[in-house]
Amino acid sequence: MSKLKDRPLAEPDREEDAVPCCPPLDSPDLSREDAETMAAMFKALGEPIRVLLFSRVASHPDGEVCVCDLGDLGVGQPTVSHHLKKLRDAGLVVSERRGTWVYYRVAPGVLARMGAITR
Amino acid sequence: MSKLKDRPLAEPDREEDAVPCCPPLDSPDLSREDAETMAAMFKALGEPIRVLLFSRVASHPDGEVCVCDLGDLGVGQPTVSHHLKKLRDAGLVVSERRGTWVYYRVAPGVLARMGAITR
Repeated sequence: MSKLKDRPLAEPDREEDAVPCCPPLDSPDLSREDAETMAAMFKALGEPIRVLLFSRVASHPDGEVCVCDLGDLGVGQPTVSHHLKKLRDAGLVVSERRGTWVYYRVAPGVLARMGAITR
Repeated sequence: MSKLKDRPLAEPDREEDAVPCCPPLDSPDLSREDAETMAAMFKALGEPIRVLLFSRVASHPDGEVCVCDLGDLGVGQPTVSHHLKKLRDAGLVVSERRGTWVYYRVAPGVLARMGAITR
C-alpha cells in the first residue's frame, strides 16, 4: 500500500526533554496520584496485541508507522484501530491523519517514562 | 502489630543475575510470546492499588514487607490480600508465611525486567 508522507509529525519524541511522570516503582516516594498515572499506562499495555502494536510503533526506524503497515498481526484493521485508539487514549501514542492514512508515533516522553519505572 | 521474622526469604532478588524476559518494547525483535509475557506483567499492574502495593514491597529497606504493615492504604485486609495474590499469580512478587503473617518480596529478576522495558 502506498503511504502519503507529506510531512513529518510536528512533535518529535525528544527523550532528553522529557520528565518522567512519577518516582520509580521501587522508590518509597510513589504517591496515590503517581500510582493512578502508572496504572493507566500499564493497563493500556495489558493486552498482547497492544504490546505488539506499541512495539511496532516504538521500534520503527522512521519514528512513525502508517496504520496501513500494521495489517500483518493476525487481526483485522478494525481491531488494529480499536487497540491503537486505546493506546492513544492512554497517552502512549499520538496519531495524525495524512491523506488516506493515519500515522502513529510514540507520544513525547513516554519512552523516558518507561525507562524510569525502576531506579 | 508484631512481626515474626524468624528467617529471611530464601531467595534474594539478585538483579545482577537476572536475565530480562524479553527484548525492549522499542526493539523490532519483540515476538508474540514476548508480548504475552509483557502484557501479563502490565495487566497485573493495571490498577492503582496494585502499583502502590508493588511499590511498597519493592521499596522496603528490608527487601520484604509483612502483610500486617500494608493496612494503611485505605482498603481492607481482604482487598490487600486479593491484590497481592494477583501480583503473585503474575510472578511479580513471592510470598512466604512465617508464623501468623505472610511476607512479600519482589520476585527475582522482576526489577531487572522492568528496567529493561526500553532500550
